[in-house]
This record gives sequence, structure tokens and C-alpha cells, in this order.
Amino acid sequence: MNKNILVSLIKSSSGEETCDLVLKNAQIADVFSGEILQRNIAVKDGFIVGYGDQYTGRKEIDLKNAYVVPGLIDAHIHIESTLATPKEFSRAATKHGITTVVMDPHEIGNVMGTSGLDYMLEASENLPLDFMMMLPSCVPATAFETSGAILHAEDLKPYYGKNRVAGLAEVMDLSSVKNTSDDMMNKLLDAQASNKTLDGHGSGLSPAGNNIYRTAGISTDHECTTIEEAKDRLEKGFYIHIREGSVAKNFDALIPLVNKSSCRRFTFCTDDIYISDLNEKGSIDDMVRRAILYGLDPIDAIRMATINPSECYGFKTKGAVAPGYEADFLIVDSLDDFVISKVFKNGNLIWENGEQKFSYKEDKREEVTNTIKLPDLTREDLMITSNSGKLNVIEVFPNSLLTRRRVVNHEKNTPYIISPDEDLAKLMVIERHGNHGNFGIGLVKGFRMKKGAVATTIAHDSHNLVVMGTDDQDMLVAINRIKEIGGGIVVVSEEKIISELRLDIAGLMSSAPLEEITDALSNLEKASDEVFERVDFNPFLTLSFLTLPVIPEIKITDQGLYDAKNSRFIGIDETDSPGDR
Amino acid sequence: MNKNILVSLIKSSSGEETCDLVLKNAQIADVFSGEILQRNIAVKDGFIVGYGDQYTGRKEIDLKNAYVVPGLIDAHIHIESTLATPKEFSRAATKHGITTVVMDPHEIGNVMGTSGLDYMLEASENLPLDFMMMLPSCVPATAFETSGAILHAEDLKPYYGKNRVAGLAEVMDLSSVKNTSDDMMNKLLDAQASNKTLDGHGSGLSPAGNNIYRTAGISTDHECTTIEEAKDRLEKGFYIHIREGSVAKNFDALIPLVNKSSCRRFTFCTDDIYISDLNEKGSIDDMVRRAILYGLDPIDAIRMATINPSECYGFKTKGAVAPGYEADFLIVDSLDDFVISKVFKNGNLIWENGEQKFSYKEDKREEVTNTIKLPDLTREDLMITSNSGKLNVIEVFPNSLLTRRRVVNHEKNTPYIISPDEDLAKLMVIERHGNHGNFGIGLVKGFRMKKGAVATTIAHDSHNLVVMGTDDQDMLVAINRIKEIGGGIVVVSEEKIISELRLDIAGLMSSAPLEEITDALSNLEKASDEVFERVDFNPFLTLSFLTLPVIPEIKITDQGLYDAKNSRFIGIDETDSPGDR
Repeated sequence: MNKNILVSLIKSSSGEETCDLVLKNAQIADVFSGEILQRNIAVKDGFIVGYGDQYTGRKEIDLKNAYVVPGLIDAHIHIESTLATPKEFSRAATKHGITTVVMDPHEIGNVMGTSGLDYMLEASENLPLDFMMMLPSCVPATAFETSGAILHAEDLKPYYGKNRVAGLAEVMDLSSVKNTSDDMMNKLLDAQASNKTLDGHGSGLSPAGNNIYRTAGISTDHECTTIEEAKDRLEKGFYIHIREGSVAKNFDALIPLVNKSSCRRFTFCTDDIYISDLNEKGSIDDMVRRAILYGLDPIDAIRMATINPSECYGFKTKGAVAPGYEADFLIVDSLDDFVISKVFKNGNLIWENGEQKFSYKEDKREEVTNTIKLPDLTREDLMITSNSGKLNVIEVFPNSLLTRRRVVNHEKNTPYIISPDEDLAKLMVIERHGNHGNFGIGLVKGFRMKKGAVATTIAHDSHNLVVMGTDDQDMLVAINRIKEIGGGIVVVSEEKIISELRLDIAGLMSSAPLEEITDALSNLEKASDEVFERVDFNPFLTLSFLTLPVIPEIKITDQGLYDAKNSRFIGIDETDSPGDR
Repeated sequence: MNKNILVSLIKSSSGEETCDLVLKNAQIADVFSGEILQRNIAVKDGFIVGYGDQYTGRKEIDLKNAYVVPGLIDAHIHIESTLATPKEFSRAATKHGITTVVMDPHEIGNVMGTSGLDYMLEASENLPLDFMMMLPSCVPATAFETSGAILHAEDLKPYYGKNRVAGLAEVMDLSSVKNTSDDMMNKLLDAQASNKTLDGHGSGLSPAGNNIYRTAGISTDHECTTIEEAKDRLEKGFYIHIREGSVAKNFDALIPLVNKSSCRRFTFCTDDIYISDLNEKGSIDDMVRRAILYGLDPIDAIRMATINPSECYGFKTKGAVAPGYEADFLIVDSLDDFVISKVFKNGNLIWENGEQKFSYKEDKREEVTNTIKLPDLTREDLMITSNSGKLNVIEVFPNSLLTRRRVVNHEKNTPYIISPDEDLAKLMVIERHGNHGNFGIGLVKGFRMKKGAVATTIAHDSHNLVVMGTDDQDMLVAINRIKEIGGGIVVVSEEKIISELRLDIAGLMSSAPLEEITDALSNLEKASDEVFERVDFNPFLTLSFLTLPVIPEIKITDQGLYDAKNSRFIGIDETDSPGDR
């Protein structure tokens, strides 16, 4: 805050100057006392400067006893996963009363390193939503894939001085922590020294692992899927971010752990959510609604979305409707159904009855396009043969990140041709960051692909190009189209592009308006019906996670097939690996 | 934390290295879940590194289901008011389970400025209690008295970089805030920029004043005396420090406001407590006990003394028994009577059944003595005459800081002689910091002094020398003795020192062991029976507050009699002041 603003706030608070806005007859959901307060609220320069009848505003609104609720906070989100820019994200999020998010630019960090962080900070400036940033702690996520960048402790350190940086993002690499790798120790110590928050990513972490994480100073987790996991983390001092995203949905499993006594240690987050889901169904607002329906005291449900994440991340002026806090609040007529009629950000009305009131400035920033650097590939590169008479196959299962290793027989030294009655497809991961253009090739079972090819540059965590198909020529067409459009998702059938979503920003996000992204997603879904026999899961998402080498049992990266069970790469025709089936 | 420690903690957490201490069969009072947990607790290098049965320690203690409670935190204290050094303070406090205090060196700051802050930081190093420091915001407290130092924003700013500095101390000068004085704005902004906590001192502050304080970013208050005051501050986002000191006692008035929903915003503090009271009766431990007796959930009572102040001041590793937290905890057999049997600080047993286990290092630090710089005074300086035939008198009331202005008749231009049947005494405040040696002189009613003189260098907030007596010669003896002993409290009768407490450190604290201070205080009390007719209040304390010029109705400073009602100095024989009686 600068001095002029502070002086102006105090002069308005004391009544010496007129306020910008006075809300009369408000019923404040007070996160401090837990009570409902009937008050007039005075606002100046984006802050609340007082409660009381003594204030006059250049604008005054009679709320007629409607409830005023603090602006909602998403405690953990990857904006890249929405597929939209921060600007388009803010359009969808603020409609649902979200006025602050804690973002982790882990995906763009993997593609572009600190330039990605800079982009996210710049692209999220001057929007009607505050984007607080955590610094990606694990880029690359593993040594078994080739990312576009490496973020060392010394790369992250200067960012702690920046205004909107709130700490170190999800530490997912237990082994680096446990083995006290020097770079990881430096990352932890720098975050601790800044007195900021250290996020965890305790997916499947045991109680012993949680001891280690907490000992390392990590104090949040958004990966609890069972009440047992959450209980262990809660009692060890983790904040539990209850997550409901487009795929991972943990609300129902975890909400029973929240009660009057433990409530202060819980928050809500989305982690990964499509812009279309956020726009249509909401996110944090919906969790508040469900928590109230579940039977929580409405103020406790609101606390989980406001003052709790604010305390968790050390925000001193967010999460409450009270003097000294940012004038971010929602108007709701009833705390039972929690339907938002108005949204204010820094005292400005930005939504009213579903209509946007905020005018975005024209954006003249250069987007970070042209990040797709692919080798030239020919049909020969796509050829699969076997020296052993066997081929390893990745088997996927609906709505699961886990895979299984299968082995099929195949005549030695003969190119493998996909046959339509086998439920097999070819799979390639091609390094696309301009490092070396290496690629891994394999076979995948379980997608029930009947023809064509699909390709995507969203491939966790290094976001190389992954392409799958039953036809080599279609696969090449898909790869070339990705190159042309600078990244995205494409579906090809009979050498034609039948659907695509251009993700021109780092190959992860679209610079298009959210409506276009939503339409493209819907078209992709339709196109997938053409190339897949029966789609009871999202094939693009499943594809995007086949490249995560640390999740058992077998995955594929630009460096080849990876046997996560035995922590080693294996050849496509290698058969002497332990655990062969 | 340094890297070696972090690595050592993680290695012990993972079981790779043996722990220092394992507490078996502990029942942990878990401030996160609100539950009692039956766990084994592993400790290494002063930190808790895990819960679980898998740990082995070089030392292991079977707690046989005793309760383990986090070390207690005093959320606001002036160590100077205990009259003891931080070292002696730590002896009394740790016995009662207090392992962290948030200290405000306001008193020594008024005497010595930044040297006083430096002294408090140095003198509180390497003790079995963590002294976190707030930076005195109002030195001097007013312009109407002469302090030993002035602390401007630029003097305080470098201290935010120091390890144990937690924020800006009690802002008591509403008018500087309200009038947006430049230096006060800078102090507030520097504290905000450091993302640390800003303490308030909202004595008697109205709801309108509380709006201004919160708008300025001030977020704590320890001056609530009524439930109405506390309610207003609570709902505006202040943390309420419930205070029980040697004089101010607010527990009974405020505890009814604490409930399951509001509890997280309340803490306990002492503000001003004598070392003797602390040693004998305890402080924060006693408040926890009383809160449990009052009917609060024991875990909520414990939270108020542990995790709540920790969150309030942004301490990331204090206030809980959990991995990643400092191994500061108490052992109690029952949460109902809360009798402390053992105290651990950083994993070391420091008290067991009332017996101290901690060995203090020999202290070779230079104490800050020789701060008393007094002019040479003669009997003539003590002469009171009147040109108007009237004299103004300060009337005091038992156990109140408020005074009343009275006027007595006196023959013009004749030295005033105290008569034994009048309940009047002479009163002088002498500048003692070496600035100019000015003094104010007056008459005081209400002490029922029958003979002799008393003098003290504790005189809020500038801590000049205040001396009161019925006999000029006794007053001079007292002044000279204060000079000889380098500050303190003395009682003189018939030109002899009948009791004294030497406060050789800045004229505020004694370098003596706490037992000596306790004895001296008890002797002073006895001596006061000799010189005062009937003592139903503490005459030394009352004297110490007669110099606070901002509290109505009439006070005295080194600059003379001050009419607080009309905000101006008045002559001792001035009669035309409005409101004469």
C-alpha cells in the first residue's frame, strides 16, 4: 500500500472525506464472531474503512437486509488446466464470486521456466480477481522425461520479493525431500526464510511421509482422497484443501471430517478444472453451497472459502468483510441456497444478476506463442518392430491414472500394424521444447480407438507432444497440425483434421475467449465419438496423464517406455523385466 | 533454520537417524483437530519430527498417558514491568509453562531508544524462553513530557529484518493515526510492508476509533475492559488479547464472549505483571485453568494460549504439538486442573515438579546502567508559592488512573508547608535522561501520606524521576539515593532510607535474582505502611502513572502540571482555567 492510499483510507474512515460507496442495511456474514451483523459498510479506494451509520458515500446502495459474504478464495489452482488465459479465467471465476486464487504455474513452468512465471504474473495483472502465486517446486517433476525448463532454488529465490508471491508450490517429490537433495533443501529454506507458505502435494503419502513433509515445513495438502488420509494430515498441522476439480472430486469423502472444532484448518480448491466446467457449474461457490447443504453452519462453510485460506497463505487484508479488509464481497439473498446476486471486487460492482459489469482493458501484451519445436518425422519413425517376438503394451483403465503392463506376441522384425479388432493403438511422446527432439514409442490398450489419431501438447508434467493413433499417416497429420497451430489438441480421421483446440500459449492455454474454448471442447468431445468406439472416460485427459512416469505401472515419456514399478526404462520388446505377464 | 539442522530433522523424521527424545504414550492436546491423540512423539534438534511407533530416541520417556500441551504464549508483555531482566523473567515464566512471549520494550525504548531495543534483544538471547519483539510505535508517548529518546519510523525500519521481530507494538496514539502524521504513516506502512503484525492499544477507543485503527492495519487489542468493547473489536477483525496483569484484570469481564465459533480470535496476555506475581501465581497457565473452570472446552482454552497467538503473530513453528513444530510442551496429568508437572523447551526438560532443570550460562554481558542523569537540587527548588492565593492539586483515587483537579487556598508568596492533617503531599517530576534537568512541581491529594518521601524512576511513559513527600529534606534524600543507586524505588523517613529496590538497568529493571526483587518488593510494601496512613492501593504504581499526561483530568510531567481535560499546561497557581472547582 502506498502512503496516499493509506491517508485517503484513514480520512474516509474518520469521516473527514466522503467514501466511494456505502452499503446500507447489510447483513454481514462475520467470519470472526461467527454471527450475522446488521451494519452499514463504508468503502474507499477498494478497502472497507468502517462499519457504522455515520458514513456517507458518493454512491449508496440499500441492501435491504441481503447478506454480504467475503469474496471467495480458491486455495490451489493451475490456471493452465482451465485451458484459458488468466483474463478469460477471471471472467468465469468472478461470476461465481471467486475474487482471489492461489495459482501454481507448474505446467507453464515446465514448458518455459521463469519466463512462464513472468508470463503468468504479467497476464494476471489488472484483472478483477487477485492471482496470488506459488513458485513451482518440482520442475521438472522427474528426471525420466525432458521438460522445457529446470527451476532451481536460485531461479525461484528472487520471486519471493514480488508482491503476489505467497510461497512455494506443491512439493511432490518426496524422495528429494527424504533424501535431502541440496536443491530441494534450498527451495524449502528459501521459502521458510521468506516466512511464506510451503504447499504439499501428498498424493498417496503415508503417515511416515506426512511426518517428513511437516518436518520440512510443508503445511498444506490438496491430495487427500480418503478421510483417513485427511485425518492424519489434519492432526499433523496441514491445512486440508478440499478439492473438487473437473476430474478429482474429494468433497464427499472429506466433508465429514469438518466440524466446529476442526473447521479452521480446512479450505476449498479446484486444482485442475476446465474453464467450461468453472463457467457453467462454478467451483468454490458450489462447495460452499454443498457444505451448507451437508449441514455445516453457513458461517463455517464461508470461513472455509475465505478467512481460512487467507490465514493459511498469510493474506492480511483478504477473507473477511471488516474494516481494513479489501472490499471484495458477494451479495446473497439467503445463506441457505447461497445464490450470488452481486459480486464486488475492491468496491467495484463486477457482476449483477449474472451480467458482467467489469470492462476489461484492451490487452496489448505479447502472448508466449511459438513454443512448439518438433523434429521432422517420417512414417519410418513410427515403425514398431520386435527382436524378441514380444511387445510391451500400456493398458489404461477408465478414470484412473494407474496403468498395467501387458505383453503381446508379434512376429520378429516385422513392422507392427494396428488391427481394428485388437483395442490397441500406437502411442508416441515427442520432445517438443527444442532440446533434442527425442521420442518414445509404444502401444496402448483400453482406449477402444477405432480409427484416426489424436494428439495433445498437454502431457503431464513436461508437456511434450503425445500422439496416439491406429494409422501412421493420421498420426503424422496430427503431429504436423500441432506444429502449425503452435500446440493444442487435434483429432484426425482419414488424414483430415476433424476437430481441434488451439492452445497457442505455451501449448497449454488458448488465447481465445472462454466461449470459443468451451465450444472447441464440446466439438472435441463429439469428434472423439468418431475415432473411439465407446468413450466412458475423457480420452484426452487420460492421454495427458500417460506421460507421468512416477505413477505405476507403466508409462511413456520422450525417453521411452518407463516401468514405474521397477523404476527403470524398458525397451518395447524387452521381456526379461521382473513381473512379466 | 540452517541447512544442517533441516537435513538432520528430516533424517530423524524418516528414521534414518536416531532421535534425541521419544515421548511414549502421550495424550496430545491437538489444537488442529480439537481431539486428544494417543501418540508417541519424536524430537530432534529442538523440533518435533514425527508421530508414530517407529521412532527410537537416545532418551525415551514413558508418559503413561499424561497429556502433552503446547508451550504457552504470552501475547503481549512489557518485560520491564516485571522489574526483572529477561533472564530472571524466564525463570519465573517457564515454571508456569510459558515458552514464548511477545514483548514490547516500550519502557526501555522511552529511556534509551534503539539502544534499549538492542539491550532487550541481546539480554533475551539463549534463554529457555523465546522473546519475540514488537517495535515500540509511540516513543515518546506524548509531546508533553521529555523522554530519553525518540523513535522515528526510520529508527524502527531496520529491525524488521531481525529474526525475532514480529511487528509494530501497541499503537496508542489515535490522534497521530487519525491525523495521518507522516511519521506514524511511515511506521504503519513499514510494518505492513514487512507483512508483520500491527498491535493496537485501544484503551477506551470508540467504535469509530476502532474503524480507524483497523483501516490503518492494526489487528490486535489488549485494552478491552468490557464485553461491549471486545465485541466491537472482535467483529472488526481485531485479535482480542484477554489481559490479566498485576493491576489490570479483564478475564472475568471478557471470557463470556469466547465460544466455539469465536474462540480462534482470542488470546491471553499479561501486559504488566510483577515478577513476584508471575513467580508465585503464574499468568497464562492460570488463565487457561480459569477458562477451563469457566466451562470452555479445554482444547479451546489451550488454543487461546498457543495456536491463536502463534497465528496472530505469524509464527510458523509455535503453538502446537505436531511434526514441524518446536518441541515446546508441557506435561499435565489432567486437563481439568491443568497442573503442570514438566516443561520442555526445544525438547529439553527445563522444569520437573517445580524444580528447575535448566542451567543458565554465566552472563558476561554489560548491563545498561548509569542512565540516571539528574540535576543538583536544593531545598529552594522544592519551594511552592502562589501569586494568586490558590494552588492546584492533583487528587488521586484508589486503583484508578483517572485524577481530579482540586484547588486549595494558600497565602500569597509564602512557601507552602505540608501540614500533617491535610492529606496533601508535594510531588516533583524531574527530567532524568540528561536532556535539560527540568522539573515540574505540584501537590497531590489522596495518598494519605503521613511522613517521609518516596521516589521512583518508573514513571510512565517517559520514566523520569517522580518523587513525593511531606518533607523537603526527605525528598532530597530520596532523590540523591536514586542518583546513587542508578534508579529504582526508595522510601525515606526522617532522612533515612528505610527501603529500596535498585533498578539499575535503565532505571526500570533490576539485575538482581527474582528472589531478591520479590523480597525488596515485599519490604517496600512494609515500608509504605510507615509513610502512608492507610494503603488500600499500591502507592508506587499510582505514582508511576501520575506522569501520564494524556489521561484526564490533571497530571504532572517534567514540563509542569498538565490539564488533560483542556490539553494544556497550567501553572500551579493558575486559577482562570475553565472547569475550576
